[in-house]
Amino acid sequence: MLALHLAHGRLQLRDDMPPPRPQVGEALIRLRMAGICTTDLEMVRGYVPDFAGILGHEFVGEVVEAADAPEWLGRRVVGSINIGCGRCPTCLGDGPEHCPTRTVLGIHGRDGVMAEQFTLPLANLLPVPESVSDEQAVFTEPLAAALRIREQLAIRPTARTAVIGPGRLGMLIGKVLALAGTEVTMLGRSHASLALPAAWGLAVGLAEEAAENSFDMVVEATGNVAGLAQAVRMTRPQGVIVLKSTFAGEAALNWSPIVVKELNLVGSRCGPFAPALRLLAEGVVPVHDLIECVYPLPSTLEAFTHAAQPSVRKILLHNP
Amino acid sequence: MLALHLAHGRLQLRDDMPPPRPQVGEALIRLRMAGICTTDLEMVRGYVPDFAGILGHEFVGEVVEAADAPEWLGRRVVGSINIGCGRCPTCLGDGPEHCPTRTVLGIHGRDGVMAEQFTLPLANLLPVPESVSDEQAVFTEPLAAALRIREQLAIRPTARTAVIGPGRLGMLIGKVLALAGTEVTMLGRSHASLALPAAWGLAVGLAEEAAENSFDMVVEATGNVAGLAQAVRMTRPQGVIVLKSTFAGEAALNWSPIVVKELNLVGSRCGPFAPALRLLAEGVVPVHDLIECVYPLPSTLEAFTHAAQPSVRKILLHNP
Repeated sequence: MLALHLAHGRLQLRDDMPPPRPQVGEALIRLRMAGICTTDLEMVRGYVPDFAGILGHEFVGEVVEAADAPEWLGRRVVGSINIGCGRCPTCLGDGPEHCPTRTVLGIHGRDGVMAEQFTLPLANLLPVPESVSDEQAVFTEPLAAALRIREQLAIRPTARTAVIGPGRLGMLIGKVLALAGTEVTMLGRSHASLALPAAWGLAVGLAEEAAENSFDMVVEATGNVAGLAQAVRMTRPQGVIVLKSTFAGEAALNWSPIVVKELNLVGSRCGPFAPALRLLAEGVVPVHDLIECVYPLPSTLEAFTHAAQPSVRKILLHNP
Repeated sequence: MLALHLAHGRLQLRDDMPPPRPQVGEALIRLRMAGICTTDLEMVRGYVPDFAGILGHEFVGEVVEAADAPEWLGRRVVGSINIGCGRCPTCLGDGPEHCPTRTVLGIHGRDGVMAEQFTLPLANLLPVPESVSDEQAVFTEPLAAALRIREQLAIRPTARTAVIGPGRLGMLIGKVLALAGTEVTMLGRSHASLALPAAWGLAVGLAEEAAENSFDMVVEATGNVAGLAQAVRMTRPQGVIVLKSTFAGEAALNWSPIVVKELNLVGSRCGPFAPALRLLAEGVVPVHDLIECVYPLPSTLEAFTHAAQPSVRKILLHNP
């Protein structure tokens, strides 16, 4: 079958990959649509150096085999991306996201979704409501990541809140915060980057012009350490910075203001799928505005080249 | 009068400094004893480049002039180091520690205590109980900084807790945590550095040998970024790292584990004086063990040279 394979920094679209065989409790899923995420691009740059396999973790698909659970056959699904052992205290308490022996779909120890078919445990799947299109459903994973912030922090609707980095994930974060009545300011590097946030009715500004100590909470979604330094500057003393960006390698930062201002930095990763699907079904997140274009699966390499350009919105892959 | 003056990186013991004149609401204080802190050493290295004045913020002294409040005359006092405007929402709500126009004794915009005499608002002063010696009282400020962690976080006594950096501040933090029933492990770079923590009855270990994800909370008190990288490694997913070190300049760190593990980093600075004085009066913090030696004020430069050596305990200055 056709699949996008990464190993030792080499990205190849291969047509000789054997179709996967589902294990006990797993479904075989035919890809309908996949999204290219910044994490995928960072992985090509070496963010997870020991990964060798098929890339991709944002998807909507159709169950084509589910030996233990025929009721899933033919269903359109999305799926959460962490697969834990299911037995350790972390799995039993908090879920698989921090299981020490977890695999992560297309990121760590497990083939991903940028292929004609892939497998995932049934426990990770959620059926997609009829009213949610493939183009919407493929945003479930990043929207869940945006919602994760709400699971970690009680955010007062009156908190002065900013999101630095009006990119794909940053826009979803801004929308999720705005949907709770919070006044969100989207901060970017250029006026052009603020057009879409403004069209969504969000307050906007240039990150470099934001006043010192002017926000109670800042979400860092730029993917670079310059954004973090800006967040430190504009967050008020005893305020909160949410860290949403992962990137390869080390980055230099002046640490002392974090101590002097007694800031609270919160790392934030994967989030809950069911609430994300509910928001998509309610139609309150205009994810269509975030789509740059859709490539057919055989053009995946071209799609990756396109996705790596600056200021590009979401690039999707379609398996016809 | 004699005073230790820092300007443009040049540290001088000058005998030509004019004695300070207390403003309205301020006391004139004769120094009895001062402590040299890592922040003082970092300031000599340029941590606060625009500071020009007398260094020092850890002290015990005696009120020699207090025009508005003669009841303070002759009293032995310690004093908190942040002086706010007293009118802004931060001052009225949380206190002066984060007032945007604050001065900080011997650190920012205000002469410090390493002189024969200095001034401080009466509102900053606390009388020292008879039972607390000068050698104990001079630890009030760093002990308050250790207690600050308890004001910021609800720390379960069952939390697996470590302090990296068994130096002067690290030891006070370890003791404060242990006094609440928490099992504290003090982690150092060498076996020699662990002798005193072991003598205090605390669990000890080498930082580099601590297992990955083995602590719920780690306090970083090493003063260098290597300690922070170790803290990131040994803190469990969704655990807490308390940042207690300030140092000059930028430091490079791999940020991604903070996001992937969803760590919570909390900057922590100045703390409450009254509880610190209570602990000293109760005699439950054996601060005498932390004293390396006491220099007379005219030997302050020698004292600074000594304090900058590795693994040195607290160096005190005495104004006879």
